[in-house]
Amino acid sequence: MKLYEQVASTVKDRIDLGYYHEGDKLPSVRGLSQEHGVSISTVQEAYGLLMDDGVIESRPKSGYYVLKHQEIPELPATSSPVPEPLVVAQWQKLKHIIEEYHNQVSTKLSLALPDTETATLKPLIRLITELSRTETSRILNYESAVGSAELCHQIARLAVDSGCRLHPDEIIITIGCQEALSCSLRAVTEPGDIVVVDSPSFFGSVQAIKINGVKALEIPTHPETGISLEALEMAFEQWPIRAVLLTPTNNNPLGYSMPDKHKIRLLALLKRYDIPLIEDDIYGDLNYTLPRPRTIKSFDTEGRVILCSSFSKSVAPGLRIGWVAPGRYREHIMMVKYLSSLSTPPLTQMALAEFIAQGYYEKHLRKMRINYQRDRDAVIGWLKRDMPEGTRISYPQGGYLLWVELPNEIDTNELDRRARLESISIAPGTLFSASGKYKNFMRISCVNSANPAIEKAITTLGRLCKEMQAQIPLAEPV
Amino acid sequence: MKLYEQVASTVKDRIDLGYYHEGDKLPSVRGLSQEHGVSISTVQEAYGLLMDDGVIESRPKSGYYVLKHQEIPELPATSSPVPEPLVVAQWQKLKHIIEEYHNQVSTKLSLALPDTETATLKPLIRLITELSRTETSRILNYESAVGSAELCHQIARLAVDSGCRLHPDEIIITIGCQEALSCSLRAVTEPGDIVVVDSPSFFGSVQAIKINGVKALEIPTHPETGISLEALEMAFEQWPIRAVLLTPTNNNPLGYSMPDKHKIRLLALLKRYDIPLIEDDIYGDLNYTLPRPRTIKSFDTEGRVILCSSFSKSVAPGLRIGWVAPGRYREHIMMVKYLSSLSTPPLTQMALAEFIAQGYYEKHLRKMRINYQRDRDAVIGWLKRDMPEGTRISYPQGGYLLWVELPNEIDTNELDRRARLESISIAPGTLFSASGKYKNFMRISCVNSANPAIEKAITTLGRLCKEMQAQIPLAEPV
Ligand SMILES: Cc1ncc(COP(=O)(O)O)c(C=O)c1O
Ligand SMILES: Cc1ncc(COP(=O)(O)O)c(C=O)c1O
Repeated sequence: MKLYEQVASTVKDRIDLGYYHEGDKLPSVRGLSQEHGVSISTVQEAYGLLMDDGVIESRPKSGYYVLKHQEIPELPATSSPVPEPLVVAQWQKLKHIIEEYHNQVSTKLSLALPDTETATLKPLIRLITELSRTETSRILNYESAVGSAELCHQIARLAVDSGCRLHPDEIIITIGCQEALSCSLRAVTEPGDIVVVDSPSFFGSVQAIKINGVKALEIPTHPETGISLEALEMAFEQWPIRAVLLTPTNNNPLGYSMPDKHKIRLLALLKRYDIPLIEDDIYGDLNYTLPRPRTIKSFDTEGRVILCSSFSKSVAPGLRIGWVAPGRYREHIMMVKYLSSLSTPPLTQMALAEFIAQGYYEKHLRKMRINYQRDRDAVIGWLKRDMPEGTRISYPQGGYLLWVELPNEIDTNELDRRARLESISIAPGTLFSASGKYKNFMRISCVNSANPAIEKAITTLGRLCKEMQAQIPLAEPV
Repeated sequence: MKLYEQVASTVKDRIDLGYYHEGDKLPSVRGLSQEHGVSISTVQEAYGLLMDDGVIESRPKSGYYVLKHQEIPELPATSSPVPEPLVVAQWQKLKHIIEEYHNQVSTKLSLALPDTETATLKPLIRLITELSRTETSRILNYESAVGSAELCHQIARLAVDSGCRLHPDEIIITIGCQEALSCSLRAVTEPGDIVVVDSPSFFGSVQAIKINGVKALEIPTHPETGISLEALEMAFEQWPIRAVLLTPTNNNPLGYSMPDKHKIRLLALLKRYDIPLIEDDIYGDLNYTLPRPRTIKSFDTEGRVILCSSFSKSVAPGLRIGWVAPGRYREHIMMVKYLSSLSTPPLTQMALAEFIAQGYYEKHLRKMRINYQRDRDAVIGWLKRDMPEGTRISYPQGGYLLWVELPNEIDTNELDRRARLESISIAPGTLFSASGKYKNFMRISCVNSANPAIEKAITTLGRLCKEMQAQIPLAEPV
């Protein structure tokens, strides 16, 4: 450990131990330098590191302060979905999303898009440009069906951060996480089967279940600890469950991360009932603090967990690069992937592998973690200020999505309709349930809260909610 | 029409009418210039055009000749597959192909890879490089789920060449033709259904049928005219067929193109029995002569035909860009595509759209058509010379694949095994059947016959066949 890292670590420990609280002023640079007998510049480096890590902030002409996070907002209650396997509800709303993706809305709070304007992605663009010139023969031809060897290698290397020991040969590259999920579902289920999901749940998974002719059984889910293991065990007793599909870390949309001991208990349950788990870890690397939470896969010794992820949220969705570590289902999933799309485009695979190998991915993540945590805090603050009494908000520890429970009388489909007239979109809650629940919930993205349009959009949403509560009819479009 | 085009057209007519035969010497430039009262350079331009079109050739110090093509080889007989719906045979062989894609074989006659070294693809690379620099925000984000508007526009424009009137909104971009086929199959079938295919048939389709839990019914297929309509009608009478899946133009592997009147009759049959057609047109644009054959879709007034294609064979497979014109199944296929992979990567879509818009695609195709026809002729010549007595060879009018029937006693799985020891691979016939038929058939690629390795490989294959006929055992690898 370098000297400045030692100093930073000491300061961090003191914060963690409660010697300094959020918002407290820290010792001056000179003071700390004297205390530790180190140079001024070493202390400056130490404070710089803590700023990079999102632990402290510097206030001009005043000094360094412990960064203040939002107080935990009032969380939504544990969900209570329909306790029966269901054919997932019609996808009219989703169709709307698909077709309207490129519509005229200017503030799309509805979409889960990461920050792709950040300077930390410049090296990626440079790599794509360079490789497009130098690797022409490779980028024009089919890549290996399982994916580029370099990229599999880098992904295996990164997996260590989530406590997971993966061999590059255990990884199959896919077209985003969606293809990983879709192939995994197809490999382990047959029409008529029942799959367990958390509730609310990412619509791409729930609808993929539907399209496979499989039923979804939604399990009550807590906004901090995730799926209820008691309810899950009851479900295993009661129904012939074929598989479980979860996003256990920095969940979309609810924001929970299952504690490790829940992850371990879940795995034991799965073993007892001999059921595979499809684990979606797409937001795992965007955890605000390090080390990031472990995947359930990292506890799995039997190849029972199919780990799916992608770089769509941590880097850029336009790359369309995801992956699956399919455990004991490798042969079948490889086959389904091959017959879905033969292979994944080579250019972006190569560029991403280099981006990771050269350390740019970690630099980028470090910046994004800080930004997204600030975005979360800012948007939660505005929601508390502008939304009607009784609003509850999730408090994710990673990623950039908030799940907002509005007063009962507010139908978010209607809210979305009204918001779109003001060029704002939200993701209505019903998208996230098999049974069309969550009528008074919405999911919004906090990315890029520094853009004044975001604060303005929240204020507008607050006004619209209050108009709806006062039953003011929507003005007819002219 | 320009003057030189008129002259070229007159010469072409005379060839077509039989005034000149293949290999005949054509009038001298001076002679033709006098006959038509045009300048020497106009005639030179006219001959240049006919050379570009692969109609004539110039022999140094001798003059211009009508290009000589191979005499039609002895064709394989009409196939007689098992007349029952079958669960497609195990995919061990295909797994082998997937996993061994990047193995050490140096002459991969087994793979259907186009020529990607040609100078006519340079503009595409340039466009990718440029767009990666200038369109960063777009290439990092999700493209519309149905695909880039520009590319859909270009595809609709090109469809006119196959007699088809398509609106850009009728097109959905996919990850190669494989995703188009896979989504179409998933949209129109359910497990337990029966789908009709030609026989032999592209393994990617047959295995996609299998993985959907659907049975395949193979129909006898003629090497020039394609699927037997009589047999098809009988099948429609006898079985509850859910869909038909065919590659009716420049078929892989058999090389047939259904005559227009067959295409029309097929459509009438489909209408009578109310069955949808999945039409795979991936080799359609590589027809050697213009105008290219019409798609069955072009005769369809009911939205019954789902047209699938890609630029994997006509441009480059590494782009992974295909498309589907889903007719009346649009909504369902759009949904399946969305849930398979959300959307197709934007960079290559944009580059390809520009490549087509700027006329490079047509230039490239013109060159490829000539090259592939020459490749076909060269490889057929070598096969006739080197392969055992009784060998039969397909005679495609487009594309670059040959289907070769070897004497009965030659098992091409064994031939492939022996060939790989000499660093050559072939695609064994059993890959192309649901029931493991075609044991003594192989599919080989003719691309780049100018490379001496190809001729050498054919000679080696001939020797190996004769060794197998003489029952010379394979030397044990050391
Ligand atoms: C939880 C979750 N899983 C999967 C996906 C699909 O991601 P990709 O773009 O990598 O296919 C998303 C995208 O929104 C997501 O939120
Ligand atoms: C007849 C046929 N259809 C579809 C495909 C799949 O092509 P793509 O690479 O566009 O997915 C192939 C590739 O070999 C093919 O030959």
